[in-house]
Amino acid sequence: MSFRWGIAGTGAIANGFADALGRLPDAQLVAVGSRSRERADAFGEKYGVAPRHRHTSYEDLAADDGVDVVYVASPHSHHHEHTLLFLNAGRPVLCEKAFALDAGQAADMVAVSRKRGLFLMEAMWSRFLPAYVKVRELLAEGVIGEVQSVEADFGLRFPADPAHRLFDRALGGGSLLDLGVYPLSLASMVLGTPDRITAYGTLGPTGVDEHVAVLSGYDSGAVALAQSSVRATLGCTARITGTEGCIELPFLMHCPDELTVQSRGVTERLSLPAAREGDSGDTAGGGLHHQIRHVQQRLHAGETESDVMTLDETVAVMRTLDTARDQIGLSYGRT
Amino acid sequence: MSFRWGIAGTGAIANGFADALGRLPDAQLVAVGSRSRERADAFGEKYGVAPRHRHTSYEDLAADDGVDVVYVASPHSHHHEHTLLFLNAGRPVLCEKAFALDAGQAADMVAVSRKRGLFLMEAMWSRFLPAYVKVRELLAEGVIGEVQSVEADFGLRFPADPAHRLFDRALGGGSLLDLGVYPLSLASMVLGTPDRITAYGTLGPTGVDEHVAVLSGYDSGAVALAQSSVRATLGCTARITGTEGCIELPFLMHCPDELTVQSRGVTERLSLPAAREGDSGDTAGGGLHHQIRHVQQRLHAGETESDVMTLDETVAVMRTLDTARDQIGLSYGRT
Repeated sequence: MSFRWGIAGTGAIANGFADALGRLPDAQLVAVGSRSRERADAFGEKYGVAPRHRHTSYEDLAADDGVDVVYVASPHSHHHEHTLLFLNAGRPVLCEKAFALDAGQAADMVAVSRKRGLFLMEAMWSRFLPAYVKVRELLAEGVIGEVQSVEADFGLRFPADPAHRLFDRALGGGSLLDLGVYPLSLASMVLGTPDRITAYGTLGPTGVDEHVAVLSGYDSGAVALAQSSVRATLGCTARITGTEGCIELPFLMHCPDELTVQSRGVTERLSLPAAREGDSGDTAGGGLHHQIRHVQQRLHAGETESDVMTLDETVAVMRTLDTARDQIGLSYGRT
Repeated sequence: MSFRWGIAGTGAIANGFADALGRLPDAQLVAVGSRSRERADAFGEKYGVAPRHRHTSYEDLAADDGVDVVYVASPHSHHHEHTLLFLNAGRPVLCEKAFALDAGQAADMVAVSRKRGLFLMEAMWSRFLPAYVKVRELLAEGVIGEVQSVEADFGLRFPADPAHRLFDRALGGGSLLDLGVYPLSLASMVLGTPDRITAYGTLGPTGVDEHVAVLSGYDSGAVALAQSSVRATLGCTARITGTEGCIELPFLMHCPDELTVQSRGVTERLSLPAAREGDSGDTAGGGLHHQIRHVQQRLHAGETESDVMTLDETVAVMRTLDTARDQIGLSYGRT
């Protein structure tokens, strides 16, 4: 069967997603929603969405019976509202990360999806890339022994612009939700939910976290060190260190095309391309189709949740982000 | 003038130091001290120390008037005792790192050196290597802008051997004092004394810290992430990230021969060899002569302290180590 997708939002990631849909034989982009007629039409024109499915409100998109599943690509300050809107209209949802502004919102979204028996997943697309699949395989095989630490960071220097979403506290700006979620999600994938967390960082002039370091501790003795920044360009790499070796994810750690694996004295470089022919670096590094294929497989199987990016884990990572934010004195100004 | 050195101890680092002395025109190794006649003689034979200066007690070495300055190369569990012995005998001292078991011991040693007006320095030899000198120059020139983070780790997998010094709690075993001191000293060199510290880690079967992560926070908003391990081989690299670029220290971060500097979009690799012709990798990576030359310059100038590795900073780093150790529940079994 072919899945008919609707996309809520018309930003950069929505464009990348639409590109990826266009290259999957069993996926179709059939509808788009935007608050703006102009943007809905431009996006619809670009991606071949019929005029009557170019909606100028998210409510209209939610009511579109021609849609099998909705991808929520609005700013994360609106993920809670929009995800609930689509779920309550009976649509399965793939919701862009950060999944929500806080764990409370995330739990709410999960509760509604479960109550309604509708598929919901955080669009943590890294999880489905060949490199990440391989990391899980290598860990399961014990190739690096017992994991002692996960180090990961994602930081890019953005020009300080109070008008930009990234520096807007009310929109959940800052480094944590946009970038920090990747290293923290990787740590969660490898080590699970931390038993203790300490975060130090810097709030910028607009009150958002411009640079944050999060140290996670596990009762097993393992540790995870994560950093995110919108003020400085970090290595954007990751390293998983075990007693018998390590796995290194090169720049950019959230969508690598290769892994370096050291195991018992032997170093190997594995080529694991994320992109398909035709994918461009512009579409978030290419490789969004891996996630889409996974969602479609789960939907096809009648599942309401991913077994790779579970909802419980999404909420747990959100809780880690909440704790880190509390510790550095950041609030998004909500109650 | 030529400086006449005595070495207390005959272990690996003592050998490396003697090698380095042998290649400096204005330095002489004139005396050695050991608890063992056999080791004192073997060391003396190897490095041309006259039989009457091959002492079989540290007290005898301290009483040797032919010695201008003593290098303390005993295990760090004995640094306090031996440094005080030599200072109280009127000898200037260069004391191997870790400088002491804790900040109390370190402060004690510093107090005696100051009271007696005698030179004392922690043998943090990294500080004097060309790469480290260059790091300080680059930072002073603002090449990477405002420093946001220091990431550094040093970890090597050692076979778990309860009989080995590294796994002996009473001798100050574990990763922190042997290896962790390097990344933490680098962080201190770049950012100063942290305003807050959190450490998580693992104690092994013998009760020593086998893997530790230390997150340091500064009121400026900067952070430092350090790791040490005797259980897993870490990257052994360092990265100093600023708003305008970064400086990377490759493996091994405590004695690199090059630096990678990214500044405002331009990447440059700087060659900064630490070794002299004839230095071998066996002598702790080569490059101990840089430190020796610095000590001799300070002694020649009549100074009682280094301006590069100050005693206050040595005590402050020791205090950081104490805090980290307390937080992971490690005690060396002293009162």
